[in-house]
Amino acid sequence: MSKKYVYYFSEGRKEMKELLGGKGANLAEMTKMKLPIPQGFTITTETCDEYYKLSRKMPVGLEEEITSNISRLEKEMGKNLGDPNNPLLLSVRSGAASSMPGMMDTVLNLGLNDEVVDGIIKKTGNDRFAWDSYRRFIQMFSDVVMEVPSELFSDELDRFKAQKKVKFDTQLTASDLKELCDIFKSITKKETGQMFPDKPFDQLMLSIGAVFGSWNNNRAVLYRRLNNIYGLLGTAVNIQAMVFGNMGNDCGSGVCFSRNPSTGENKFYGEYLMNAQGEDVVAGVRTPKDMEDLKKEMPEIYRELNDIRLKLEQHYKDMQDMEFTIQEGKLYMLQTRNGKRTAAAALKIAVDMVKEKLLTEKEAVCRLDASQLNQLLHPTLDPKDEDKSEPIVTGLPASPGAAVGEIVFDAEKAFDLAEEGHKVILVRVETSPEDLIGMNAAQGILTARGGMTSHAAVVARGMGKCCICGCESLTISYKDKTITTSHGLVIKEGEVISLNGSTGNVYAKAIAVSEPDISGDFQEVMKWSDKFRELQIRTNADTPKDVETAIKFGAEGIGLCRTEHMFFDEERIFCIRKMILADSVEEREKALKDLIPYQRQDFEALFKALDGLPATIRLLDPPLHEFLPREKSEIEELARETNKTIDQIEKKIASLHEVNPMLGHRGCRLGNTYPEITAMQARAILEATLRINESGIKTVPEIMIPLVGDVKEFIAQKEIIAKVANELEKEHKVKIKYKLGTMIEVPRGALLADEIAKEAEFFSFGTNDLTQMTYGFSRDDVPKFLPEYIRLGLLKIDPFVSLDQVGVGQLIEMAVKKGKSVRKDIKLGICGEHGGDPASIEFCHRTGLNYVSCSPYRVPIARLAAAQAALKK
Amino acid sequence: MSKKYVYYFSEGRKEMKELLGGKGANLAEMTKMKLPIPQGFTITTETCDEYYKLSRKMPVGLEEEITSNISRLEKEMGKNLGDPNNPLLLSVRSGAASSMPGMMDTVLNLGLNDEVVDGIIKKTGNDRFAWDSYRRFIQMFSDVVMEVPSELFSDELDRFKAQKKVKFDTQLTASDLKELCDIFKSITKKETGQMFPDKPFDQLMLSIGAVFGSWNNNRAVLYRRLNNIYGLLGTAVNIQAMVFGNMGNDCGSGVCFSRNPSTGENKFYGEYLMNAQGEDVVAGVRTPKDMEDLKKEMPEIYRELNDIRLKLEQHYKDMQDMEFTIQEGKLYMLQTRNGKRTAAAALKIAVDMVKEKLLTEKEAVCRLDASQLNQLLHPTLDPKDEDKSEPIVTGLPASPGAAVGEIVFDAEKAFDLAEEGHKVILVRVETSPEDLIGMNAAQGILTARGGMTSHAAVVARGMGKCCICGCESLTISYKDKTITTSHGLVIKEGEVISLNGSTGNVYAKAIAVSEPDISGDFQEVMKWSDKFRELQIRTNADTPKDVETAIKFGAEGIGLCRTEHMFFDEERIFCIRKMILADSVEEREKALKDLIPYQRQDFEALFKALDGLPATIRLLDPPLHEFLPREKSEIEELARETNKTIDQIEKKIASLHEVNPMLGHRGCRLGNTYPEITAMQARAILEATLRINESGIKTVPEIMIPLVGDVKEFIAQKEIIAKVANELEKEHKVKIKYKLGTMIEVPRGALLADEIAKEAEFFSFGTNDLTQMTYGFSRDDVPKFLPEYIRLGLLKIDPFVSLDQVGVGQLIEMAVKKGKSVRKDIKLGICGEHGGDPASIEFCHRTGLNYVSCSPYRVPIARLAAAQAALKK
Repeated sequence: MSKKYVYYFSEGRKEMKELLGGKGANLAEMTKMKLPIPQGFTITTETCDEYYKLSRKMPVGLEEEITSNISRLEKEMGKNLGDPNNPLLLSVRSGAASSMPGMMDTVLNLGLNDEVVDGIIKKTGNDRFAWDSYRRFIQMFSDVVMEVPSELFSDELDRFKAQKKVKFDTQLTASDLKELCDIFKSITKKETGQMFPDKPFDQLMLSIGAVFGSWNNNRAVLYRRLNNIYGLLGTAVNIQAMVFGNMGNDCGSGVCFSRNPSTGENKFYGEYLMNAQGEDVVAGVRTPKDMEDLKKEMPEIYRELNDIRLKLEQHYKDMQDMEFTIQEGKLYMLQTRNGKRTAAAALKIAVDMVKEKLLTEKEAVCRLDASQLNQLLHPTLDPKDEDKSEPIVTGLPASPGAAVGEIVFDAEKAFDLAEEGHKVILVRVETSPEDLIGMNAAQGILTARGGMTSHAAVVARGMGKCCICGCESLTISYKDKTITTSHGLVIKEGEVISLNGSTGNVYAKAIAVSEPDISGDFQEVMKWSDKFRELQIRTNADTPKDVETAIKFGAEGIGLCRTEHMFFDEERIFCIRKMILADSVEEREKALKDLIPYQRQDFEALFKALDGLPATIRLLDPPLHEFLPREKSEIEELARETNKTIDQIEKKIASLHEVNPMLGHRGCRLGNTYPEITAMQARAILEATLRINESGIKTVPEIMIPLVGDVKEFIAQKEIIAKVANELEKEHKVKIKYKLGTMIEVPRGALLADEIAKEAEFFSFGTNDLTQMTYGFSRDDVPKFLPEYIRLGLLKIDPFVSLDQVGVGQLIEMAVKKGKSVRKDIKLGICGEHGGDPASIEFCHRTGLNYVSCSPYRVPIARLAAAQAALKK
Repeated sequence: MSKKYVYYFSEGRKEMKELLGGKGANLAEMTKMKLPIPQGFTITTETCDEYYKLSRKMPVGLEEEITSNISRLEKEMGKNLGDPNNPLLLSVRSGAASSMPGMMDTVLNLGLNDEVVDGIIKKTGNDRFAWDSYRRFIQMFSDVVMEVPSELFSDELDRFKAQKKVKFDTQLTASDLKELCDIFKSITKKETGQMFPDKPFDQLMLSIGAVFGSWNNNRAVLYRRLNNIYGLLGTAVNIQAMVFGNMGNDCGSGVCFSRNPSTGENKFYGEYLMNAQGEDVVAGVRTPKDMEDLKKEMPEIYRELNDIRLKLEQHYKDMQDMEFTIQEGKLYMLQTRNGKRTAAAALKIAVDMVKEKLLTEKEAVCRLDASQLNQLLHPTLDPKDEDKSEPIVTGLPASPGAAVGEIVFDAEKAFDLAEEGHKVILVRVETSPEDLIGMNAAQGILTARGGMTSHAAVVARGMGKCCICGCESLTISYKDKTITTSHGLVIKEGEVISLNGSTGNVYAKAIAVSEPDISGDFQEVMKWSDKFRELQIRTNADTPKDVETAIKFGAEGIGLCRTEHMFFDEERIFCIRKMILADSVEEREKALKDLIPYQRQDFEALFKALDGLPATIRLLDPPLHEFLPREKSEIEELARETNKTIDQIEKKIASLHEVNPMLGHRGCRLGNTYPEITAMQARAILEATLRINESGIKTVPEIMIPLVGDVKEFIAQKEIIAKVANELEKEHKVKIKYKLGTMIEVPRGALLADEIAKEAEFFSFGTNDLTQMTYGFSRDDVPKFLPEYIRLGLLKIDPFVSLDQVGVGQLIEMAVKKGKSVRKDIKLGICGEHGGDPASIEFCHRTGLNYVSCSPYRVPIARLAAAQAALKK
């Protein structure tokens, strides 16, 4: 059976988006709904695909189908293509299955030639309209189809107006415009060596080819890449009878939304212009009127349009974005589609539509874009203020939100200034754990190096703090305390900048900030999400403050507590450094003993904040060199305090240096070579558990051993922890309950998960490291080539942002299967950055995990995404 | 059914090694062969296992079985344990399934007490012998069973001799020795608070417990760890009637081999002493006599022993290592086992035994230890000379062989001195690709840092050059040009040192070197190996010299040619640096164009050396920063030569810095972001192919794309190469044949091998990187914890030395299966360091690879190991 290339509008329906494109499917649907549509037909996306397979040739049979559909259209409209007495004019528009606004080509007013223009003048008596339409058609067709640069025409128009001594196009007379048509045709002749095609059917076929061709123009390809649009066949082409909003004062064009796209209010919202074409409304040449004006000006048309609005919303069960044209007092619908909206509007519309019984709660949940919630959870730069400002640099939008403050280059200074009440922004080439104190005190963080998962980015997201990373073009001088942009602009310490963490824009001035508003609709949607989701949502949290924020956002426990973050406080870091510098086990044990009270307090405070919710606590993970000082002055201070020589300390630092710290002496490799560290941490956790249980809060800590690649590593750690637990049980004469599990973050851990599960009560997938090792991508170094890889299409998306389901995911599925094969009730979770990404959450649901854990500020997103995943099944 | 704990010798056989230990099984076998064995019985290894499971208690029923076996032995010997008139004396010896010489405990002369001593004197009239035996027994038993420090007795003996004014033990009279027995007993009493046990059966049971206990003494545990002995149940205990070689001049003891263990010559070889115990022969108190002496001295005994030798060799079909004792003119065999031998002896024995029809070729091949061949392929330090010398430091034996030369600290100086005819050893803290020129010129390489797979180690093994790595205790000063040992010894540039690359020993003097001898036996064994093996053996080679060496050793092609090694020559490195510093694609292309002639010559020379054998050529792999200079002076020079500022170059170096270079911008990530590099290399390879084909040597190069984790990366590279090939084909009007494949070295590549195999014609497993990423082990950094991991038993063996079959191997098996599922005839090989490791080669055979590729000097090992793998199946 040969393919059907062309669908008359009445042959399609809204479900045929893949084949007819969004625009074509909706035009077909509106036709079925008997709404007033300028009739026409759609050439399928498959035809476009075949056009490319044939090396940009039209498939055999297409022309025949087009001819017969044109005949049908001519009959229906009572007009004929190219008939001077009663000409049918056409629009030829692209329309893919995914919206790609403005990326592909359109030809309007097709079917005009000298004779037809005369005929129109005869018929309408409007010679200026006729010649202006022809002039526009020649320009548009020459540009789109014949590839004559558009500027040649606009330059000529300017020259022509100067010659005629007029300022505006509208001042040109009909005969001026006629003259211009000839000039335009000669430009095309000169540029292409070809005559402007006179025959309307030739015009049509050439335009169709051009629209197909525009599917692969540079900007369309780029747009698809940037918006992760993949797997489409091509664009459809919609051929439709032209209607004109610019034929007189009973004509007009407008764009409208069935509800307010910015607030979600259920009120007809839109703009229109009388005696204008759609383009004019969008271009903003004149100030458009609103729907209230239409109601007064053309009450009949308003009523008809309002009926259509309600009918379409009922039909599509979603807020609609519509285009219409009024021609000689008659309303035509040109397009309808689900309308884009702000996050706040999306929530309000969802809640209202459920109240209106337009949607069920499940449907409402599924319609929402979980990632969009992010907008609501952070302060934002006031768009009105921001729009007027020019960014000095654009970095990676590493952590959303807004920040305004004085720049500071040193973490301790940031802390001190913040204590004094200053709002500061910490600026570093890159951050390290030593900067935590300053990051915490700052409004926002700006770095010159590092990607979306650099230290600064990960920590800032965890803190819910605005962060812009990887501004490679900035030169940061710690010495001079200045930032210099590539344009030579110098900003000194103490001067104010503003960060937009959602776009990566940096401004050299203060911009107003709007605080987040978590409205009642938000809570309602969360309530529904919790009803439907099966995944538990935990949070990555290291401090009671994190825990409070996360619980406010609905977290059900801690999925990852990184104990090392507790060590950077002044007194603690000293103990840690003493421990690292120890020359004997005894010396090391002494230093560790000093740490126990601190660690115990940390855990007690966490358990208290959790009030009985579960907590997974990861034992020390990073390599020891991260805890040692870097600055000369700090080394000197440490030498004094520890009675070591500077030389000894520097030798120790050198001996701990690693070529690839990511793959080095860290995780349980530390705990196994320095068992004292594991023993200290186990004691602090279990003592805190004893105390908190005594206070009446029941807690069963989940101790997590990091970086396990072999069950023997796990067993060795387990033995150390069990020994401590036994000692404490004897000492306190009480049984201590705790769980012991591991992170699966090394590929070998996933490959041998069945052996590990014999010993481990739970797995938490550390997908950051698992991604690093499975791809062989250092997250600190990929910014060197990842953007280029995405540009080249070698990667669809940064695998540190959204889980690589076919690669890394394969290891996770394997580990889940192997883990369950030996321990049916093994608890499974994910605690990498992916725990807050909707697509990754869906994967986790599908793969049978019990929970996802994400930074506090992504908990609501995770709740919604988990519900959507459950409902998808 | 309850377990049988004890086997009388006649109940066992040689196949029961696991249960009876090596010694017990062979004593049983010799009993079956009706050889003269002092009778006895063996307590099984399972009993030892149970002893530990019962927390060091004897299992119920064991004592009863021992009692009944003692009765049987008493009956057979006509003597009774503890009977003063006719006493049975016993030896109690350990004996595990794997030989652990000297690691566990032994008790001799068991059954003596005051009464029995009197009885023996009465029976033999030899009171000195009786008291001396008793004295020795008290000392041994107190040491082994009662844990009294052995020095207490030897110190007392010295004191006693001084008091008696004698110099030698032998000068002590019977009554002196009797007195000593009492003193020894009182020492034991004082130290332990317990009387020395009088009852022979108590002595026996305590001794058995002590032997079980010695299974887990520190040195035994360490020995098993060091020798990779795992999975054994425990030690067996052999209880045997004592025979004495020291009862008079018709007595003696000896050790002998059925052939010469050092040359393999088929001649009875051994040593014995008259009137002596076995210990005396080993200890070397008197100079022992040889078998020719025995033939003269005791022709009957000699004939009997020689008969036994021949019988045992026929029976075991292997060279035997035997112990015997002559008591009062009667020969007793105490032990036999397969004898250890040198590599040369192993080959000769194998070849001879096939000639003698004792073994088939297949059996002979299977008996050999492939790794041992390494001894034969490199020069070695003369053991006579080396034994007399004390090493100044011991590092990691990174690449076998021997080297003697003046130390030099700079690669270029090493090169210059070598050109002048000096023999030099390059000493570096660690090496980098910049040092290649010096490494190549040096006799050997010594580094202070880096493990068995550090740059120095890998490159040196590739060159077949002696290398010792990771001598952490050495302080190397480039400034002073000195090495300082931890004892403060300073060695200056120009002074001579010697390296033993097989032990890691470094000597501060010149030691004589013996050149390798690849004898006819070697060739014979290789011929058999080639007959049986199914795996092809290729080599990792980057130069024609490598190729020549490898072909001499039997390589069948290149499995891995690392093109980057070609870039370090002076003129080339300049082009490379210019390319890296280029500010535009044009500038980069120009620099690359200058490289083409060099690269083409490289490949032409390789193809010529291969004379039609296949070659897999890997495109540029390491990150670009490896090619940039580090020293200030070099940077200045480069600035001058490239017309860049020093600042520009330093900025470039800084911008290329990576946190984890292993997981950074390298491999095909370079080729995809700088497609010009791939195009240049493809052109050089294909142009060389065209030229060499014209010269009459048919060659089909195999171009290998490194570090592929996604098929899209492969396709992008494929397109670049195909474009170059098309251009050349048009230019030269000839079809160019080449193959295109990839390295599977990133876990994701293995996980998605089916997709990649749709495009790739071959896979080569890069098991170095695959191991790094699967374990999350940086091979440069693991020396920080790997030794400790091995000591703790968390790892059996360095996974960079022998492939981790259950983890990394799982990924390989997966990739093989997936690869074959879409491309049945996909060619599969391995080119990591593991390609020369026998266990890994067996894995490759089993997994269905087509070839292994290893450094030239390991090719013979691979040939033999591949044959063994094929025969094992």
